[in-house]
Amino acid sequence: MNAVLNLFQSPLKVVNLGLASFGETLAAHEVPVVQVDWRPPAGGDLALLAALDRIAAHSTVNVEEANAEAVSRILKGKPMLIGVGTARDVVPGMHSHLVLHSGPPITWDRMAGPMRGAVIGGLIYEGLAKTREEAEALAASGKITFEPCHHHNAVGPMAGIMTSRMPVWIFENETYGNRAFATFNEGLGKVLRYGAFGEEVQERLKWIETDLAPVMSEALAAHGPLDLRGLLAQVLQMGDEGHNRNRAGTSLVIRELAPHLVLLDRPREVIAKVLNFLNGNDHFFLNLSMPASKCVVDAARGIEGSSVIIAMARNGTDFGIQLSGLGDRWFTGPAGIVEGLYLPGYTAADAAPDIGDSVITETAGIGGFAMAAAPAIVKFVGGTPADAIAFTERMYEITLAESEHYKIPALDFRGTPTAIDVRLVVEKGILPVINTGIAHKTPGIGMVGAGLVKPPENCFQDALKAFAERYTTPHQRSTL
Amino acid sequence: MNAVLNLFQSPLKVVNLGLASFGETLAAHEVPVVQVDWRPPAGGDLALLAALDRIAAHSTVNVEEANAEAVSRILKGKPMLIGVGTARDVVPGMHSHLVLHSGPPITWDRMAGPMRGAVIGGLIYEGLAKTREEAEALAASGKITFEPCHHHNAVGPMAGIMTSRMPVWIFENETYGNRAFATFNEGLGKVLRYGAFGEEVQERLKWIETDLAPVMSEALAAHGPLDLRGLLAQVLQMGDEGHNRNRAGTSLVIRELAPHLVLLDRPREVIAKVLNFLNGNDHFFLNLSMPASKCVVDAARGIEGSSVIIAMARNGTDFGIQLSGLGDRWFTGPAGIVEGLYLPGYTAADAAPDIGDSVITETAGIGGFAMAAAPAIVKFVGGTPADAIAFTERMYEITLAESEHYKIPALDFRGTPTAIDVRLVVEKGILPVINTGIAHKTPGIGMVGAGLVKPPENCFQDALKAFAERYTTPHQRSTL
Repeated sequence: MNAVLNLFQSPLKVVNLGLASFGETLAAHEVPVVQVDWRPPAGGDLALLAALDRIAAHSTVNVEEANAEAVSRILKGKPMLIGVGTARDVVPGMHSHLVLHSGPPITWDRMAGPMRGAVIGGLIYEGLAKTREEAEALAASGKITFEPCHHHNAVGPMAGIMTSRMPVWIFENETYGNRAFATFNEGLGKVLRYGAFGEEVQERLKWIETDLAPVMSEALAAHGPLDLRGLLAQVLQMGDEGHNRNRAGTSLVIRELAPHLVLLDRPREVIAKVLNFLNGNDHFFLNLSMPASKCVVDAARGIEGSSVIIAMARNGTDFGIQLSGLGDRWFTGPAGIVEGLYLPGYTAADAAPDIGDSVITETAGIGGFAMAAAPAIVKFVGGTPADAIAFTERMYEITLAESEHYKIPALDFRGTPTAIDVRLVVEKGILPVINTGIAHKTPGIGMVGAGLVKPPENCFQDALKAFAERYTTPHQRSTL
Repeated sequence: MNAVLNLFQSPLKVVNLGLASFGETLAAHEVPVVQVDWRPPAGGDLALLAALDRIAAHSTVNVEEANAEAVSRILKGKPMLIGVGTARDVVPGMHSHLVLHSGPPITWDRMAGPMRGAVIGGLIYEGLAKTREEAEALAASGKITFEPCHHHNAVGPMAGIMTSRMPVWIFENETYGNRAFATFNEGLGKVLRYGAFGEEVQERLKWIETDLAPVMSEALAAHGPLDLRGLLAQVLQMGDEGHNRNRAGTSLVIRELAPHLVLLDRPREVIAKVLNFLNGNDHFFLNLSMPASKCVVDAARGIEGSSVIIAMARNGTDFGIQLSGLGDRWFTGPAGIVEGLYLPGYTAADAAPDIGDSVITETAGIGGFAMAAAPAIVKFVGGTPADAIAFTERMYEITLAESEHYKIPALDFRGTPTAIDVRLVVEKGILPVINTGIAHKTPGIGMVGAGLVKPPENCFQDALKAFAERYTTPHQRSTL
């Protein structure tokens, strides 16, 4: 009783959990309040809480063990750039009437502007159409098959269009033997990946095929395979994060290959043009960091009982994820609008929804997840260096491991947050941080800015429910 | 009276200024103590306080105005790499029997091991001696003149030896027209600047003369002048600080020049060797950041009444500084021992004292002053990323300005601390932070580590006293 009396006679000191307004009322009366940012698990959603509980208590598999295996495979992955090939020769299942695109599966009629533009450009590049109108008719005719890059061990930035004649980088995960592929980065301005398809785009694609790709192929053969894990480890010490800031990465590749480029038996002018192109295109490295990430996380696919996310991708219409333990099934939600900085003359009204496979970098623990290593990126995507650090720190809450290779100087060389567990995303209500470029919504225009985007919450929730459905006992499932 | 009684009846709460031990005694009795790190101005030294007072109250010049002019010149400086030449043709006053060295003036008999080794190497390179013994005899004979690089608009890392036949980088401060010079960086291992002088060193120096320098000269001519201010601004966003971490800087120079290198009318093998050398030597950029810094601060030399430090340099025996307002006079103290990380097999017992003109980078507001931009450097010089940030933050206390060009992402893009005022150094007792390589004390061995070094306090104090002597009225001076 005395204790209770004491309580009411002492000055009030309050710790307020959750809703800030209670604490604010007290603070307005000069009562000292410590506000704790607390939310109920899974936002208090009963079905999600039931799914989380059932996975915790009634799994038919050992989820922790399965995830430990997924984590181990991701941490041990060693992505090597081993060569250059033509898509139809090296990408599994590629053929002349197949067009690969970014994100989860989508049909022509649902495709966003930039992806339609890039499909048009791809069909013209293949010689299957001569004009925009011909290409659109062909695309709608049913004679062209559209499939995600991800279904063919590939990834593509923005629209991510890959057709059979395009040259591609060939990556191999040295540890597990699986491969990954990506097209060459075209630079900025009017480019296919942002949905441009005109003459300038076609000429550059042709030059990539006839000059850039063979030159890089020969230089790479002379140099030997490029260790992307080693390069990525370095660029994180040099202000890159491997998704939207790639100045260090591009520089390191140039200095590594230049001594071999100069010795190639090709006209000096051809080599000089290649070196000029590389020097003028800091995103060159993005098309290496993406397949490097892809072949690392792909090794963790298909582990029975693992709730680790092994793909996140957007096609400009839908955002989708895949879980290691749920095969090739996609869980999708609407692609978001990117919040960020716009190039002069453009606003959010010009922006296409979130698009591209480049979020494979975040899936592998770099990109937005490593923003603390790249404070200067805020000049490109918005925010402050303190935000960049906070973003990375938050990602430790939804990941199962810290990279043993990719270290962040500003965090005392802590490893990047790696291996997203869908259970943690849903339970904590923390969505993966993604930084990305912004395409114009109209086909043919191109890049209008860059920024940060939130994935749709429902795809993580749906994946969790499906995971519970698949991996808990039938009796327990019936209580769903 | 009541108030006093209250004081002694209330629980004690203490703010302790200065000497921590008073506070520690109270803390041991569980009295809450806030320790304030306070030192009396100028460490309480009466002569220094008198000098500071006289400068503040009895100057014959307007010191603030003079310093504002110095700051303005430093901030407006635009260092351009305009070409390559041979020392005897382009460095003012250079001749066949003149040997330039790092740091303040020094005679052969007082030179440290690494500098002696490099002098021997320089005389052999010039063809003035064939053996170590011949070179030593010649150096001691009085037939060779030794002068600081700084007296000839030049700077040199470590021993800083420049002789007449050596190729040099030519810099011009585009804003003020003054020039600066530096030799080419030789890479790591056995190199002249660390006091090695054997066959390997001579062969490399020869190759620099016959191949590297002409190739770089032609590439630079094809490219046009390189804007070092622009490059330095970029490398600070890429984890370099321009003194001991130069991986980004070297990479950016390579990618900028490679397209021109490949077009030169020289055998491919020669160009490939150059590119291999650059790729293998991250310190290549140091010999550009140094003269870039030199020509910027040199424009602020000789401003009547300015207390800004326009040179800091060490010759391995003495550490010296120069003030803008005191002509070419050096104020020196003993060169310190570097605290840092040693290469395997070496310890502090192997270390030569602090040596080199590379501290021109700190004098210009980069290097150690910009360590917050280069957290990964702590792997090279020791400490933690938090230390690196703290070092930079401390330097704002002894500098008059923040760079308008060199911005530090981790400090919210704050400009680097620029233009050291000797008055602030002495008053606050805060010495400039310098990070540096460590040479073996024996001639001919080379680098043994890297770390941080404190300059001797007395040279700043002596400079301040001389400044007061020069710039206060005779009556006031007599009270010294």
